[in-house]
Amino acid sequence: MTDAPPTPLDRGAPPVVILVEPQLAENIGTAARAMLNCGLTDLRLVNPRDPFPSERANAASVGALEIMPPVRIFDSTAAAVADLNMVYATTARERKMVKPVLTPRAVGIATVEAGRAGRKVGLLFGRERTGLEKDDIALADAVVTVPLNPDFTSLNLAQAVLLLGYEWYQAADNTPPRVLESHGSPPATKDQLYAFFAHFERALDECGFLRNEEARPNMIRNMRNMWGRAELTEQEIRTLHGVVKELTTLREKKH
Amino acid sequence: MTDAPPTPLDRGAPPVVILVEPQLAENIGTAARAMLNCGLTDLRLVNPRDPFPSERANAASVGALEIMPPVRIFDSTAAAVADLNMVYATTARERKMVKPVLTPRAVGIATVEAGRAGRKVGLLFGRERTGLEKDDIALADAVVTVPLNPDFTSLNLAQAVLLLGYEWYQAADNTPPRVLESHGSPPATKDQLYAFFAHFERALDECGFLRNEEARPNMIRNMRNMWGRAELTEQEIRTLHGVVKELTTLREKKH
Repeated sequence: MTDAPPTPLDRGAPPVVILVEPQLAENIGTAARAMLNCGLTDLRLVNPRDPFPSERANAASVGALEIMPPVRIFDSTAAAVADLNMVYATTARERKMVKPVLTPRAVGIATVEAGRAGRKVGLLFGRERTGLEKDDIALADAVVTVPLNPDFTSLNLAQAVLLLGYEWYQAADNTPPRVLESHGSPPATKDQLYAFFAHFERALDECGFLRNEEARPNMIRNMRNMWGRAELTEQEIRTLHGVVKELTTLREKKH
Repeated sequence: MTDAPPTPLDRGAPPVVILVEPQLAENIGTAARAMLNCGLTDLRLVNPRDPFPSERANAASVGALEIMPPVRIFDSTAAAVADLNMVYATTARERKMVKPVLTPRAVGIATVEAGRAGRKVGLLFGRERTGLEKDDIALADAVVTVPLNPDFTSLNLAQAVLLLGYEWYQAADNTPPRVLESHGSPPATKDQLYAFFAHFERALDECGFLRNEEARPNMIRNMRNMWGRAELTEQEIRTLHGVVKELTTLREKKH
């Protein structure tokens, strides 16, 4: 019911994103854009195929690469994750490995907990078409797989980065699931609401709408429930008083 | 601990996606791809600027538009949502309207509940640059806004569709947050694990690693905790017995 933004929570350090052998410069850019959408800024590349940095990557990032700190390039996955404490390998495919498999939501929660404890987490993403090599997966602590339509799983790189980043952001977010935005117009008090009920029901009595005495109590309750669900503001109550008044006046003029 | 996929849950009907005045055919295609990733198949367009259907949209959908039922085109938002019961307007920007604002997660849950009750839900997405018109938002039941980095909120159309579709999918998903994939190799029983502890600790006693009698109980407990965290399989226990045996033999040969 408040318009003030919720107090920011301590998220700890955001996860590091490591793209292993990305092929297209554009995908580095769109991945960077998705990262920054979620507040992630540490991007590392392992042996990118296209030269980097590049104008193509910058353009695809829609400004994100200019805002983020410089992207670091490594010649092995082990070197790229050397300073991290926990590494998750993103993969859509079943591998013949005995490995914990987590959902993005579980990884988001674990990453916030790790970050708050001062530990650094990395998210590994493989090549666009072939994904991560088995040896890179074996070096990771766990696998993360996005539960989505099994009949059409072709997530592109930026979309996979977005979903992981999104879940990290949500794990420490305190946006209320539902809030009535009222932009400074306060919600009506019950006193104001009941005064409108009285005005409205008097008008309905006067015009004869409630003439069926047996049905009257139920009709009144139903309409009170309807108005109640609308979560009216003070301003809206004033508007409705005006509406009932004018409609009544119009009727009186006609008759 | 099981490799069998979890039983599918009743999701009810997926939400309908309505793109209002999309400008680029490519964005219709990438939105369709994101929809099908999440199992959404009912796409409706209101006055698309580029001609539709088109080869550009099909190519950008990476096959999704061919799999989905035909996209329907309408000349007003009201016509596009005429058969729906609940409509959410996606918008990143504050509007001067008194309106409930929900998170994508809350909308996902509400949509699954609505779908199970046989009600149809629509998700409205506005033009790429300018978003939804105020009149379209006023016709919707509520607004949905994605909580993300407020300093860089430039989600593109397909990404916004993906996040809403993803949350709908997750709302009725029963993938365990964490599972140890063991691909048919059963986890070790405690009896097998403790037999390995005995073998390992005997080897450490014999080589003198545990000669400090005072420290010995703690060292043993610490290593048992370490092996315990590894969630070993039967096969891995057999491998470790072999490793200890060979290391011991090597030591005996050397001496």
